[in-house]
Amino acid sequence: MTFLFNSDARRGAVFAEAFAKELADVPFAMDAAAIDPDAVRYLITWTVPENLARYRNLEILFSLGAGVDQFCFDAVSARVKIVRMIEQGIVRMMQEYVALAVLALHRCLPTYLAQQRAGQWRDIPQPQAGSRRIGVLGLGQLGQAVFDRLKPFGFPLSGWSRSPRRIEDVICHHGELGLEEMLAVSDILVCLLPLTDETRGFLNAALFAKLPKGAAIVHTGRGPQLDHEALIAALDSNHLSSAMIDVTEPEPLPAGHPFWSHPKIILTPHVASVTQPATAARAVIENIKRHRAGLDPIGLVDRSRGY
Amino acid sequence: MTFLFNSDARRGAVFAEAFAKELADVPFAMDAAAIDPDAVRYLITWTVPENLARYRNLEILFSLGAGVDQFCFDAVSARVKIVRMIEQGIVRMMQEYVALAVLALHRCLPTYLAQQRAGQWRDIPQPQAGSRRIGVLGLGQLGQAVFDRLKPFGFPLSGWSRSPRRIEDVICHHGELGLEEMLAVSDILVCLLPLTDETRGFLNAALFAKLPKGAAIVHTGRGPQLDHEALIAALDSNHLSSAMIDVTEPEPLPAGHPFWSHPKIILTPHVASVTQPATAARAVIENIKRHRAGLDPIGLVDRSRGY
Repeated sequence: MTFLFNSDARRGAVFAEAFAKELADVPFAMDAAAIDPDAVRYLITWTVPENLARYRNLEILFSLGAGVDQFCFDAVSARVKIVRMIEQGIVRMMQEYVALAVLALHRCLPTYLAQQRAGQWRDIPQPQAGSRRIGVLGLGQLGQAVFDRLKPFGFPLSGWSRSPRRIEDVICHHGELGLEEMLAVSDILVCLLPLTDETRGFLNAALFAKLPKGAAIVHTGRGPQLDHEALIAALDSNHLSSAMIDVTEPEPLPAGHPFWSHPKIILTPHVASVTQPATAARAVIENIKRHRAGLDPIGLVDRSRGY
Repeated sequence: MTFLFNSDARRGAVFAEAFAKELADVPFAMDAAAIDPDAVRYLITWTVPENLARYRNLEILFSLGAGVDQFCFDAVSARVKIVRMIEQGIVRMMQEYVALAVLALHRCLPTYLAQQRAGQWRDIPQPQAGSRRIGVLGLGQLGQAVFDRLKPFGFPLSGWSRSPRRIEDVICHHGELGLEEMLAVSDILVCLLPLTDETRGFLNAALFAKLPKGAAIVHTGRGPQLDHEALIAALDSNHLSSAMIDVTEPEPLPAGHPFWSHPKIILTPHVASVTQPATAARAVIENIKRHRAGLDPIGLVDRSRGY
């Protein structure tokens, strides 16, 4: 009944300590070569190991990250549960990053940064929060948590998801028609979507054209969701005003890519939200306890949806 | 019983409309030459007009801004009440700006911006909010409002003011000893102090030396409070990590000043918080009503304190 930790030793040590304290009857292993593969019931990893089939008694495959788009589901036996990482560290960091990005774009930071570099002292007419409409794509746990931090500022808030949701003080849209409705009233659009076949290339020229003139983009989903060339074109034509981008395709971004130097883009290197070992270990332990009690783990992936 | 508006016509029109609706018995004037000076009971202005003495029946001198450091008190008869601008627009904008600045410095934005310019994709170890201690200088209405926006992120919060204050979930310090205590635990120091003789040059080398190594500065007080050379020296010696600066001395900042190009400084041109005409008009009308009812106006300046 072993838990196998397939990642770096620093984070592994944090997990090992938490398991020793809170789940002492589950042997904790970091060296796959040193254990009987038949003993492994739980595996945590970033990508699916090539030799996954050797763990014939595997019950849960845990992702180290919030997304599971890096997993090839076909390589995972149908009887194995796939579980995404949902832990308070990831949630808190995403709340911070999206609040930072929305406030930065709301308060015209990209323009002020360009003016600073050019030695220009000039104020820009500032719309007030009550007339700056925010739209969030993706209403899972991260999306809902992000609204909690944006609400106090008084922005009008909308959200969109594939299936209907209800969130207090947020106008929720869903489905294809709902998407058009929300885009039309999103002065700042935040992408928090999971990467699936349906969301690949989602942020493209056609979508940008449906946003109000002068809209801005916050992208903290996954790199392949964004059409880089379409974003540059929309910024250069002044249809979009600015963007704060945390994920790209590929990562790292290649040398010479226009995102590095575009005056309307703030780029960060996929750091919006990073799994925090201590809270992640607690979340995994909690999920193993749920599983052993016959409950579904939190973050259980629906393979047909892809997240 | 005239109200004289001494500023630009665009904002004046907003005030005129509000007065016509809510205080119709007080004549509203924007052209000083066209009225009897003896009729003027209320005057709103940014600086004290040279000919102030001609308004012999003046009762209240309103500042258009949150500060009154631009007023020379000696030029204002002791029987005239001086009133600072305290209105929801200023408060909301300051909440936004300080939240933006604190999150930007917390999430290492100056370094990521420098990396972007250099084409570097590299993550920086990220302290969590629970271990990033914020200290706020100045616990007036703006300081207290700023805490409301910072609290949800989970930062440990401290504040300092000249005299004792109590704010829920904030460790409040006061006086000279209290200042040393707070500086020692401020990883991000926010200056919201009014400009007085005591706060001129407040942010200097001696103060920076009392902050923890790696601390960051948010300056949204007044330009003359900051020793520019001391800040540059503290950043260049790596004692301080970064700063977001909205006010300088002089303004605009001269060409060639090191703040324009310093990689650890984000500079904005005194835009953190700007009086919003609609909410400012409401605040002034409310204060005239209070005054006529025998109450002190909100924002009444204590001339001995200077704010």
